[in-house]
Amino acid sequence: MAAPLSEDSILACLAQYFPESHASLLVGRGDDCAIVRQQEAQCISTDLFLEDVHFRRRYFSPAEIGYKALAVNISDIAACGGRPSCFTLGLGLPQGIDLPWLDSFFSGMGALAAKHRMALVGGDLSRAPALHICITVWGDVQPDCLLTRGNGMAGDALFIVGSLGLARVGLAVLEAEGNAARVHWPAACAAHLTPVPQVDAGIMLARAGRNARPPALMDVSDGLARDLPRLLGMSPGLASMQGKSLGAELVLPQGMLPPEVVRYAQQQGLNPVHEALRGGEDYALLGCCAQDMLPPLQSALPRLMPIGIVTDSGHIMCNGQPLGAVHGFDHFA
Amino acid sequence: MAAPLSEDSILACLAQYFPESHASLLVGRGDDCAIVRQQEAQCISTDLFLEDVHFRRRYFSPAEIGYKALAVNISDIAACGGRPSCFTLGLGLPQGIDLPWLDSFFSGMGALAAKHRMALVGGDLSRAPALHICITVWGDVQPDCLLTRGNGMAGDALFIVGSLGLARVGLAVLEAEGNAARVHWPAACAAHLTPVPQVDAGIMLARAGRNARPPALMDVSDGLARDLPRLLGMSPGLASMQGKSLGAELVLPQGMLPPEVVRYAQQQGLNPVHEALRGGEDYALLGCCAQDMLPPLQSALPRLMPIGIVTDSGHIMCNGQPLGAVHGFDHFA
Repeated sequence: MAAPLSEDSILACLAQYFPESHASLLVGRGDDCAIVRQQEAQCISTDLFLEDVHFRRRYFSPAEIGYKALAVNISDIAACGGRPSCFTLGLGLPQGIDLPWLDSFFSGMGALAAKHRMALVGGDLSRAPALHICITVWGDVQPDCLLTRGNGMAGDALFIVGSLGLARVGLAVLEAEGNAARVHWPAACAAHLTPVPQVDAGIMLARAGRNARPPALMDVSDGLARDLPRLLGMSPGLASMQGKSLGAELVLPQGMLPPEVVRYAQQQGLNPVHEALRGGEDYALLGCCAQDMLPPLQSALPRLMPIGIVTDSGHIMCNGQPLGAVHGFDHFA
Repeated sequence: MAAPLSEDSILACLAQYFPESHASLLVGRGDDCAIVRQQEAQCISTDLFLEDVHFRRRYFSPAEIGYKALAVNISDIAACGGRPSCFTLGLGLPQGIDLPWLDSFFSGMGALAAKHRMALVGGDLSRAPALHICITVWGDVQPDCLLTRGNGMAGDALFIVGSLGLARVGLAVLEAEGNAARVHWPAACAAHLTPVPQVDAGIMLARAGRNARPPALMDVSDGLARDLPRLLGMSPGLASMQGKSLGAELVLPQGMLPPEVVRYAQQQGLNPVHEALRGGEDYALLGCCAQDMLPPLQSALPRLMPIGIVTDSGHIMCNGQPLGAVHGFDHFA
């Protein structure tokens, strides 16, 4: 029989996985606010993670939901070259969620928080019509080297750290087959269920930018086709404002793509490269840097893959073809 | 005809009410993270504000929803004696919300943010089954004078800044009569719809604590009956941990209560004092301080009302009676 749910029982469960003591905590959870001592410059991000919008309980385990809700936020910190330090959790719980479920949920989130030495410093609990998670995360960053979008120049090398299109294939096969998909599509399912935020890579890229023009950097959450124009400041508003007309020539041979992306596209009669370009939620880092910065970056970070160059053409080509009708994801489209 | 909703149109609407430039912003909205320059010590709070849990669209105007979602968070900063500086917004939107609605929502939130010179530094948008708002707020605080709970001593004067029970009456009459209730219960409706966070009072109390034992302080969100034991560290876990057995003798003459609380209780055949003790969501500040600190506090802050003394009895009396079966609010009870 499930134990009755109360604010106190939920908080006691949570306390097993999120220690109250942390170097930066002056006052921990349980007061009106947490009070935190922190470095002068902070990078801050908030992400919603909502049932049946961002995840389904049908094939996400509770631990995977807890893990991914935090991972997608950490990825934003990684994209700024920051080191994640703390987070808050807004948690709306529908009927039917019990303490064993929450225990597993907190264990998944807590393991990732422990890996990055992050403190859960506060939050809020409520009943809600569906599982609703809102996390705000922040991290330390060097104010003299901020990795942002829109900092690229024509001639820069484009690169990616992480995989392209794998999480989108994972979503497709999990939607179609449920948990059975994990057997035949292990890498794709893992990419969708438990993406790995590229924190160390982000910090390394930030260091590389200290005595040179810093790389431009972002994380790929809506697909390369949608996110690359953002990296280059090509969105209509930005372009006119900054008088820029950057573009890109992507070189994405099929051999560079994750094997499960190629296999899936072939089974479905789709172009694997287009699938990789559309693929959101990989939480890979996408960036560009001066050409002479590329070789030392590749030595230090072997996972870093060059994928082309920044141009001043105002449009994006991929393997010699215009990017054309390949689109990413808009929640409101 | 309503304009089509897209991420871009929502962000353009929001930009009218939340300026991008702020003394503390190094990188504003639109990148993976905001990057903020902050004082060393920060107080931080996260609150959920959910449709049909915390508010109803039936009698909340969009501007009032935007206002209150931010106000309840600012109140937590006030309860630490902090000065609010910035916030993030997670916003889940159901079908049927259009741009004019959002324009009004952002205008209500933006006016309160402007009043406190707060920057909206980031957030996330999504579709959701119901209106879902999650705000995280930051404020500057002096590390040498933290106003927290559990800092009281027997003999301390108890005080309140703000009203007791008014918001609960507002909720009851708005639930019963809808918008018509605003005519006959203006103060109660305003207390429920647009509570005023006591920021200046919190900062003044923090200053008073600099050269003396600081007052204990919290905001009353679940009702005095539930929140006073928290202020005094009387919750079962805390009491045993700290070996404390504080209590209180409250003196709450009916004449001290808001007239609409008295009128409502009389109409319903209820005890007005019990209604005031049960009343949550007033976002009044509840605190205690050494007796000799009280007169100067009252001079500086005429709205501050003494409501009794802290005892070492381990239980709470009100007007000579045990607090007994007067309870506040638990979302999961």
